[in-house]
Amino acid sequence: MATEASTESSADAYDELLDKIQRISNVQNAAGVLGWDQQVMMPDEGTPARSKQLSALSAVSHDLLVDDEIGELLDELEAEELDDEQAAVVREVRRSYEREVRVPTDLVEEISELSSEALPAWKEAKAENDFSKFAPTLERLVDLKKQYAEHIDPDRDPYEVLFEDFEPCLPLDQAEEILDEVKATLVPMIEEIRESDVDLAVDSFQGTFPEEQQDELVRDALDVLGYPWERGRLDVAPHPFSTGTMFDARVTTRFDESDPLGALLSTVHEFGHATYTLGLPDEAYGTPLGQARDLSVHESQSRLWENHVGRSQAFWELFLPTFKEQFPETEDVSVQQAYEAANQVYEDNLIRVEADELTYHLHIVIRFEIERELISGDLDVADVPETWNDKYEEYLGIRPETDSEGCLQDIHWSHGSFGYFPTYSLGSVMAAQLYAAAEDDIGDLDGQIRAGDFDALHEWLTENVHRHGQRYETNELVVEATGEDFTADYFLDYVTEKYGALYDLDSA
Amino acid sequence: MATEASTESSADAYDELLDKIQRISNVQNAAGVLGWDQQVMMPDEGTPARSKQLSALSAVSHDLLVDDEIGELLDELEAEELDDEQAAVVREVRRSYEREVRVPTDLVEEISELSSEALPAWKEAKAENDFSKFAPTLERLVDLKKQYAEHIDPDRDPYEVLFEDFEPCLPLDQAEEILDEVKATLVPMIEEIRESDVDLAVDSFQGTFPEEQQDELVRDALDVLGYPWERGRLDVAPHPFSTGTMFDARVTTRFDESDPLGALLSTVHEFGHATYTLGLPDEAYGTPLGQARDLSVHESQSRLWENHVGRSQAFWELFLPTFKEQFPETEDVSVQQAYEAANQVYEDNLIRVEADELTYHLHIVIRFEIERELISGDLDVADVPETWNDKYEEYLGIRPETDSEGCLQDIHWSHGSFGYFPTYSLGSVMAAQLYAAAEDDIGDLDGQIRAGDFDALHEWLTENVHRHGQRYETNELVVEATGEDFTADYFLDYVTEKYGALYDLDSA
Repeated sequence: MATEASTESSADAYDELLDKIQRISNVQNAAGVLGWDQQVMMPDEGTPARSKQLSALSAVSHDLLVDDEIGELLDELEAEELDDEQAAVVREVRRSYEREVRVPTDLVEEISELSSEALPAWKEAKAENDFSKFAPTLERLVDLKKQYAEHIDPDRDPYEVLFEDFEPCLPLDQAEEILDEVKATLVPMIEEIRESDVDLAVDSFQGTFPEEQQDELVRDALDVLGYPWERGRLDVAPHPFSTGTMFDARVTTRFDESDPLGALLSTVHEFGHATYTLGLPDEAYGTPLGQARDLSVHESQSRLWENHVGRSQAFWELFLPTFKEQFPETEDVSVQQAYEAANQVYEDNLIRVEADELTYHLHIVIRFEIERELISGDLDVADVPETWNDKYEEYLGIRPETDSEGCLQDIHWSHGSFGYFPTYSLGSVMAAQLYAAAEDDIGDLDGQIRAGDFDALHEWLTENVHRHGQRYETNELVVEATGEDFTADYFLDYVTEKYGALYDLDSA
Repeated sequence: MATEASTESSADAYDELLDKIQRISNVQNAAGVLGWDQQVMMPDEGTPARSKQLSALSAVSHDLLVDDEIGELLDELEAEELDDEQAAVVREVRRSYEREVRVPTDLVEEISELSSEALPAWKEAKAENDFSKFAPTLERLVDLKKQYAEHIDPDRDPYEVLFEDFEPCLPLDQAEEILDEVKATLVPMIEEIRESDVDLAVDSFQGTFPEEQQDELVRDALDVLGYPWERGRLDVAPHPFSTGTMFDARVTTRFDESDPLGALLSTVHEFGHATYTLGLPDEAYGTPLGQARDLSVHESQSRLWENHVGRSQAFWELFLPTFKEQFPETEDVSVQQAYEAANQVYEDNLIRVEADELTYHLHIVIRFEIERELISGDLDVADVPETWNDKYEEYLGIRPETDSEGCLQDIHWSHGSFGYFPTYSLGSVMAAQLYAAAEDDIGDLDGQIRAGDFDALHEWLTENVHRHGQRYETNELVVEATGEDFTADYFLDYVTEKYGALYDLDSA
């Protein structure tokens, strides 16, 4: 009898917890819709009201989460026998709850207000190429974020704590090890490419490609890849992103009339994010089991589709005819030329978002190293520009001439986001491991891509990654999906083989 | 000293109240964005998540409003000396607070759930022309809404209480008197029109008018009328509506390729709603002083622009050339012909949303009379169809052959909205009074319309109606704006003169 009563009461407590966190998720998802609208639809002067709406939703969601009753339900449930799913939900809610209750509301508001001021300050500094206009704000942001980390856990490296905002369950030293391995392989490889005599067919897609046809082209690509329009839509946004839920996962893109590959591959990237969201189980909507694991796993899905599919020779065998239908002026381009154009390494590029698959990660490593030192106090804000430029010279062999194309290029710090950048590279690394495992299980993926048949790959990713939501922690998820620990090996093999062949490298 | 302390504390209490209600408004405005998105942008299968997001926001907004602290702040402030604006804010918050605290949450949820079921039941009944499929749900809705009214005030006519959901401060008997006067004039007038020999130029705009050009046409109209695109946008929705705040007031329209006037006048109607929203003072965002008074005043703004501007001869002198640019096939249509086409009385039309300016109000009167009897219990749900048809025969001289084009045509009852319909006619009546007052103050409005100069009219409406928000109650607002009590006289004079001339009526 006692057991039964206790089971009943724990079932009640679990349902009550679910109700509460579903309400919070709904409020957060509503904020997601408002954010999408702000980027994609909102008229110019809508900002004052939209900012207030978003901060109200954020305050409401905070208040709902730090509710004492959630703490009590968690205590109660943690003392019970729970099945795997319940245990995962309780673990994830506990994690968010602890982070949210430990930080004083005043500090959260202070950070949020300072970020609002930081955005225009950063924009102005970037536009005027004057780091000193952003430095004082950046200094205060660093200070506030250190305070924030200290509230969450005064005994740990604050950068580690900040990193967990984006990677709640991937140890920072593991991330660091992976980034070190990537750096150790890529720095010499890129140097070798700089010195290589090989000229790729980088001029295959030169000319003017009108926006209207590019729009049709990327819609064709989404059709080919299997984007379910009944649960999504494509729009234009200044900075492409993907957002939503498994019922409604939208993607955005942007067009540059001189660069049709940019829009195409960026759309495929956002499609990858959307497939993850769409693969989460409908019935778990609003709970951690219906939410993506973290940013590295999310980025693994976008990079898998962008790089392993969209930049593959097989994809260009499939898609080049469609490309030529939209742009008959490219009729003489061969598959090999298209493949080379999609995979050229931009040796002299200073801008992360315009980087190729290789140099990209050195852009990340530089930011990661600088962030760590900023937060540890080993680097003063005033010294960021010089450190930045030195590292570009050392790792990439190029030196920015201005801070606008140097340390002021990215928006993230103005949001107070420290610890975000590494997730981009971790995602690429994980993508390679997942793709290799999928290929092992499925067989001839290249053949399927050439045939435009993406069903098996979709199914594999849904089955092994998407449908789990936050059931497993990151490392567990990778083991579940691939049978191996999270490792940089697959990524390093992949880039060594691919770029070795493209650039005829000795090291390959 | 005592006075000073009390003033300080009342200022604090007032600020605290403002903070709380601004948060509620922000949550409700966020829901408004989600609602717009659902009608205009959301992919088909997004509904399950969207419904949950909207009901979470509605629950959050309810919980924030019934907060005891709001009750205490109201008590405290009502005991203080307040300036006019503060007093108005306290009055309006008290009103919403009382309505919200008196109704048990369970009942609110029951009504909301039943409405969700009612929608598909109504749709099915309408599609299959089978009232019996909707009747049981309608019966339960009537019952629940009566319970709802009884919780709010057990001592008053429940219909009166329900009406206040839409018209919080316009006495129902006053509304009834106005509708009676409208009916007394329109029933014989429409009969006379039915018997009139005059044939208006109803065929002026026959043919096929492609959606793309209609879209350009209505955008031209919005340009001409002065819609501020930096604070709004136009999209397509199955049922046109307008929504937003003074920073972002959007309109929607729909296109029928055989009926360009439909899209045009419906867009002008929604533009009128948007001008009201846009005329609310920026600095009062999120408070009752930055919110529209009620539905009758809102509808007065849409009807004023639709009927007094968009259906006027002066407007057609201004706009016909633009119309002809989009549709050169109409080059032979004269201003008089366009004016007649825009003002024809559809004597045999059974459908409210397709009705003209005159018969429209009898559609409303019929619904109003039936609603009153349903809620009072004098009419059984089962008898609605026959009563409906009898009234159509009596007032409009036509009898619906099916319930689909009879009592099942409108969605409102499936939402549980009883007391909504009258606001449509009250708005038209108020529009005529406001337009007459504006003309008195401004002078030659027709001349300005012909010249495409709408500045003075916009200014007059902003100054006399919009900028007040909810500072005045409805009747006070009408007196402030027009110098007279709210009356049907101007509307009746307007229709008598206009339709007397059009149809050569003896009564005119």
